[in-house]
Amino acid sequence: MARDKGEAKSGFQLKVPKGTKDWDGKDMVIRDKIFRTITDVFKRHGAVTIDTPVFELKEILSGKYGEDSKLIYDLADQGGELCSLRYDLTVPFARWLAMNSSVQSIKRYHIAKVYRRDQPAMNKGRMREFYQCDFDIAGTYDPMLPDAEILRITCEIFEALGWKGRYTIKINHRKILDGIFEVCGVPTDKLRTISSAVDKLDKSPWDEVRKEMTEEKGLDGAVADEIGKYVQQKGGRDLLTELQKDEKLSSNTSAKQGLADMDLLFAYLDTFGVLERISFDMSLARGLDYYTGVIYEVVTEGSAPQTGEGHKMQQRAKKEAKSRNGVNFDGDEDRSNDPSVGVGSVAAGGRYDQLVGMFSGKKDIPCVGVSFGVERIFSIEKARLEAEKTQSSVRTNEVDVFVMAFGGSLLTERMQVCKQLWDAGIKAEFSWKVKPKLPQQFKAAETNGVPFAVILGDAEWAEGKVKIKEMGLSEDHPDKNGVPVEVKNLVEEVQKRLEDTEKVGTDVEALEKMGEVKIEDAEEAPKTS
Amino acid sequence: MARDKGEAKSGFQLKVPKGTKDWDGKDMVIRDKIFRTITDVFKRHGAVTIDTPVFELKEILSGKYGEDSKLIYDLADQGGELCSLRYDLTVPFARWLAMNSSVQSIKRYHIAKVYRRDQPAMNKGRMREFYQCDFDIAGTYDPMLPDAEILRITCEIFEALGWKGRYTIKINHRKILDGIFEVCGVPTDKLRTISSAVDKLDKSPWDEVRKEMTEEKGLDGAVADEIGKYVQQKGGRDLLTELQKDEKLSSNTSAKQGLADMDLLFAYLDTFGVLERISFDMSLARGLDYYTGVIYEVVTEGSAPQTGEGHKMQQRAKKEAKSRNGVNFDGDEDRSNDPSVGVGSVAAGGRYDQLVGMFSGKKDIPCVGVSFGVERIFSIEKARLEAEKTQSSVRTNEVDVFVMAFGGSLLTERMQVCKQLWDAGIKAEFSWKVKPKLPQQFKAAETNGVPFAVILGDAEWAEGKVKIKEMGLSEDHPDKNGVPVEVKNLVEEVQKRLEDTEKVGTDVEALEKMGEVKIEDAEEAPKTS
Repeated sequence: MARDKGEAKSGFQLKVPKGTKDWDGKDMVIRDKIFRTITDVFKRHGAVTIDTPVFELKEILSGKYGEDSKLIYDLADQGGELCSLRYDLTVPFARWLAMNSSVQSIKRYHIAKVYRRDQPAMNKGRMREFYQCDFDIAGTYDPMLPDAEILRITCEIFEALGWKGRYTIKINHRKILDGIFEVCGVPTDKLRTISSAVDKLDKSPWDEVRKEMTEEKGLDGAVADEIGKYVQQKGGRDLLTELQKDEKLSSNTSAKQGLADMDLLFAYLDTFGVLERISFDMSLARGLDYYTGVIYEVVTEGSAPQTGEGHKMQQRAKKEAKSRNGVNFDGDEDRSNDPSVGVGSVAAGGRYDQLVGMFSGKKDIPCVGVSFGVERIFSIEKARLEAEKTQSSVRTNEVDVFVMAFGGSLLTERMQVCKQLWDAGIKAEFSWKVKPKLPQQFKAAETNGVPFAVILGDAEWAEGKVKIKEMGLSEDHPDKNGVPVEVKNLVEEVQKRLEDTEKVGTDVEALEKMGEVKIEDAEEAPKTS
Repeated sequence: MARDKGEAKSGFQLKVPKGTKDWDGKDMVIRDKIFRTITDVFKRHGAVTIDTPVFELKEILSGKYGEDSKLIYDLADQGGELCSLRYDLTVPFARWLAMNSSVQSIKRYHIAKVYRRDQPAMNKGRMREFYQCDFDIAGTYDPMLPDAEILRITCEIFEALGWKGRYTIKINHRKILDGIFEVCGVPTDKLRTISSAVDKLDKSPWDEVRKEMTEEKGLDGAVADEIGKYVQQKGGRDLLTELQKDEKLSSNTSAKQGLADMDLLFAYLDTFGVLERISFDMSLARGLDYYTGVIYEVVTEGSAPQTGEGHKMQQRAKKEAKSRNGVNFDGDEDRSNDPSVGVGSVAAGGRYDQLVGMFSGKKDIPCVGVSFGVERIFSIEKARLEAEKTQSSVRTNEVDVFVMAFGGSLLTERMQVCKQLWDAGIKAEFSWKVKPKLPQQFKAAETNGVPFAVILGDAEWAEGKVKIKEMGLSEDHPDKNGVPVEVKNLVEEVQKRLEDTEKVGTDVEALEKMGEVKIEDAEEAPKTS
């Protein structure tokens, strides 16, 4: 859609803030489908939902996000409390648990926007305002059972989105990492910062990460090399078995416990039928401070950065084309077409057993959870739909009946008929013109894909009748001009036809269930006129 | 629910920011029902939805809200653009229309949170963060037809909420008001400020409003008296007829046009069957700057402030009781129990034909809309449900099957059965214990109102069988210990029983349709353990 930028009156910029966007038309329909898919799986596993404020007291967020704390949005000091926009949904959940002493366990989901003052890459779904869909399990249970269920839920969601075979869950354990750092000789005060460096191995080669560790962070080169031997490994149960045989690691309490957890988890994931989706990736560290156990990230095609010179040129051409279409409405700072930027992980999470305790002196509740990045999933879904050319003509509104006049005004009569339909809960509209032209009324109905027209004519109305016309019938169909019905039976007659239509499955939901999401761009179509 | 305040570690306050709240348990279920009711009506009238960012560039919001602009939340200046949290959904909608030049008309709804740094009254639904549900019609149509449909939609929503006969739509017209001010002799530069004073007549007696006009705002006393004669009138078509006969008013261009609009609108509202819900109230002015035509507010029992000394004492006792229960978790500043504060209007809106033009030099699109205040509607709904004692034992989660072991662990087997059910889309849970006790498993299922248990026993499992037990059967029911089924047929057997259950209508939705919302407080019930 064309966005008019800079055409505003009196010199101010007509745009949305950097890193944010408006959602409308077909994008809204795709995004809603993602929300519905995710919510259905959450409910399948017994979750309830809670809703917390978009901003929290500033001190609630302090000390929870490590190096990323600089990305937190603060509200201006306008007198009163100092507040910040939430950075994720996990810390507010932990704060809620700490505040509500009667809750000792809960499975909750929360779908809401979060805020990060990061450098955006809009059409890769990396934004400053974006939705997270979180599922968390709080409570004391036997080891790794909730963790396994969270990973099962994660797989169910990507399967339900139709991503079968196209995603991988990278998994690691904070205690294994801590053990590695300990046995390699990382000083305690450097643990978190070295962990952050390791986490960059998905984007940067080992040489660069090693340089960050030694030159920026002052780690001894030999220590870095020892770390490098461990964290560059990836695998499955084979890797776990190998690590369990590593005497240095097994003699470390933390690593030993982490490895035992992983052993149990792998067994449970096998039972749940999702082990083949898992990759044990020892470079995965996750930036956030609060994780204490298993950690994971879901990656897919497009998650990693793209490279290569030919590719860059192709990207540049695309970028220029897109700029003309106004897609890059946020200006040059957007990194959407920078090949060194990938979509990143589409879901991530882990165990955080001490976060609630950071808020409450009274209780600590172990938690494990996962968060889905809807905009990133959206950007991949949208690209897929475009590639499959399955975006065409499904409707963005749901009107069932367009009430129109055949010649003349019949305004009051059209309004009366609409009232009758609305009273029965039927979705209906009419033209807001005193004397609308018939072709315009038909066009409005056709453009929005309305399945039925109710046509009023002077002579028929005098006899207490109107016509119901099924839209889109061929020229030689006997009912192409509509079927006369008594006004007093209209609701019944319309409902009968709508039920029949639903049976043949032309509604959006049915199409979606069949995996054929066909969506039209609402903005390009003229609205009811 | 008990909220633990001030029990946080290291001296910071464990609370949500002033004027905000967490939503959970039964409150969330009631609120979701309100959202669903409103959305259904919006869709019945052909609306599509859009979503805009929670913050806008500060200059977008400037000069749109009159005296209320001081209530806007600003983001801190952290480098880059200056932004503010949205104050309503109308200005962002107008900004979106101005930015998207291909859209000349649209019916859109938007349900989202807005922000106002006002003095809160939490349990009257007056909050700093609150939801608005907006429906707006943009586009050029014949006069008063979209306006009439908006008012029809408003009535449909309150009827659907079950408020029949318990709400009134106060209506007025900016052009009539402007005409009155002109003929009474208000100087042009005092128009908006005198209009704001008139708007207070729903809360304050005329004497006080007159004093504000003359003493605070420097209006001539005789002019104020002239205004007083007009704006203290209320009525229906009778009042309109009377005003149309008023020669002074009819000779004023603005007033004349406003009266003609009202005449047409009343005729349309009559056709739509909603005229009896309307009160023509000449004191209604609405605070916002951007209205240009018809304006309206929906009031109900509880909208107006309460007064009286006996009442005050009663309120004080209630306040103390509530404070003990932690309802007033926001402290003494909350005005929830101040009898001089009412819930206020539960919906409001009007026509704004020039707002889009304030953003775009290129186009101006006439708009009319309405906004529903969900928290205020919620507070009235909740009080009603409590008064009717219809809050008891409906579930907050939707689990259909609890998979349990009769003696022993059978952990892998329970997980396999859950996997089988989840694969078929059935909502199921199991105890996250390696060796759970049977009574605890039953208690978890009963507490959450799960309709079926699938029970695994060693001997039966060896034969490829499990038992399905319908929960809550009487002691003498032949199936009270469950019915054995083959594991391979389990999904089918469960689905058959779930369909039967749905037919007898025990699900939440069915109850809600019957108007019997029975909700249990989820936090007081122990979760799966």
